[in-house]
Amino acid sequence: MNIFVSENQVKEILSVSNTVNLLEEAMKSLSTGKGFNSPRKRLPASYNGGNLHFMAASWPEKGIAGHKSYVVANGKATFVVILYSTEGEGLLAVIEANLLGQIRTGAASGLASKYLANKDSKKLAVIGSGFQAETQLEAINSQFNLDEVRVYSRTKEKRDTFVEKMSKKLSIKINPSETSEEATDNCDIISLITSSPIPVISDKQITKGVHINAAGGNNWLRSELSSSSIKKFDFLSCDDINQAKTECKEFMEATEKGITSWNNIHELSNVIDEKIIGRKNVEDITLYESLGIAIQDIAAAKYIYDQLK
Amino acid sequence: MNIFVSENQVKEILSVSNTVNLLEEAMKSLSTGKGFNSPRKRLPASYNGGNLHFMAASWPEKGIAGHKSYVVANGKATFVVILYSTEGEGLLAVIEANLLGQIRTGAASGLASKYLANKDSKKLAVIGSGFQAETQLEAINSQFNLDEVRVYSRTKEKRDTFVEKMSKKLSIKINPSETSEEATDNCDIISLITSSPIPVISDKQITKGVHINAAGGNNWLRSELSSSSIKKFDFLSCDDINQAKTECKEFMEATEKGITSWNNIHELSNVIDEKIIGRKNVEDITLYESLGIAIQDIAAAKYIYDQLK
Repeated sequence: MNIFVSENQVKEILSVSNTVNLLEEAMKSLSTGKGFNSPRKRLPASYNGGNLHFMAASWPEKGIAGHKSYVVANGKATFVVILYSTEGEGLLAVIEANLLGQIRTGAASGLASKYLANKDSKKLAVIGSGFQAETQLEAINSQFNLDEVRVYSRTKEKRDTFVEKMSKKLSIKINPSETSEEATDNCDIISLITSSPIPVISDKQITKGVHINAAGGNNWLRSELSSSSIKKFDFLSCDDINQAKTECKEFMEATEKGITSWNNIHELSNVIDEKIIGRKNVEDITLYESLGIAIQDIAAAKYIYDQLK
Repeated sequence: MNIFVSENQVKEILSVSNTVNLLEEAMKSLSTGKGFNSPRKRLPASYNGGNLHFMAASWPEKGIAGHKSYVVANGKATFVVILYSTEGEGLLAVIEANLLGQIRTGAASGLASKYLANKDSKKLAVIGSGFQAETQLEAINSQFNLDEVRVYSRTKEKRDTFVEKMSKKLSIKINPSETSEEATDNCDIISLITSSPIPVISDKQITKGVHINAAGGNNWLRSELSSSSIKKFDFLSCDDINQAKTECKEFMEATEKGITSWNNIHELSNVIDEKIIGRKNVEDITLYESLGIAIQDIAAAKYIYDQLK
């Protein structure tokens, strides 16, 4: 095989629903000690702002290790995932990873919803209607029998375009909402997928029984929920606690203010591995802060490599 | 250009003496704040031992960022350097980096010797005669008018082969030594380039005026000098203090035992930038602990990319 894998090849090989399964096994490995994840780090890439981001993981059980890195600077983002064999086969693949990132981020919310939302969840709200919102919807839809999806974002044209595109793709009922409140009203699952620096839902919108994925921001300048809202949740989780301590504004602010403590925040891997119970009651309110971690990237990369081989 | 750069292309493009100059500018940038380096990290790669290693750097002044990563496991090592543009040009190159690593590691000792050894140094001892020893010799030779080089390693056949190969290549007088003591006797510069877990020269071999590069080990299980020897040096330096705190056994052990403190250990970048003076007297004894840092890799990578473009 050619060691380079293009976005088009990723598109052909990697489905959102299958990636939920890949991530389930990969993230569980972090709890069982069969996989290892290193939090994202950043270095300044430009005097105009922007960073080099790099994050690594290894999964000895599967004979792989690797990393994602990307530069976001001067209006351009370039994502690359590198996959190595740890069993003597050397460099396996160099993968263009913009689409891979979109798919695994959606899949992570699908996986978190599978473990934390009520099993009979029917109604989903998606706040945000950009590139990343598509896979949030697709992944969660793959795990539940949804009968209604509502979408809100600030620009009417964008949400209407999103609704049209995704209705065709998934053949389910998707409604655009005029307000964030209208979108989340009586929903079982809410996915927040914006780049907002301020809360996109109010504390009042967080109601009994709901599961929320906060998947939009991965740096401490962005938050989609208020820190005060954190006390409403019966279960708080994220993908990587150490990464959350430098990237997750909601948790950083809530722990700083004494609204919660890091001891009350759990990694999803431990829920998958049944070391802890996430949702205990139908009325529990649960939160998954999705920052995006490297073991997700290398799990997807391994699947792509295996299919191409 | 093809984005993938092979070992053979690296061999054609990257000379040891030129890399000394590349590293001079790159390492100085760490002192001036124009470049940034992130210490090497490791993740377990295999149940049989072995790691994924990854280390990143950015150099906004030059419009580049990138990283080296490698897996050493199950008897195989694979090194890759990735170079990104930070000015909107995306991924620039994916470079096979075994040779690149050999060249920049030699060049780092050449650079450290240029700044820390006596200017009229004539005699060099190299302890170790493997792959990495070749570029130590070549780089230091490029910076001084050497009239004698002595080489010691435990296996006579290996050091004889080394002497034969390098004598031809550099047309200088290289003598194999029967003992480490014979090799270092009355030398101006000593390069230690072994994978030894225990000291390869005794404290007695560290005599007035000498500069030593300890370039062989980059993890805390390896040391080429005793911790007690550290007190003999008038100037202690390394490439990256934070990396040294987890990788440099000599310094870790000497600071733990109170033989020196981290405050007395300086980064070479500050010497190059003239923020501090390394050697103050002809009789000073100086040490450079070379661990290998990512900004060296991306500086070499940028040169390779520019030549191919």
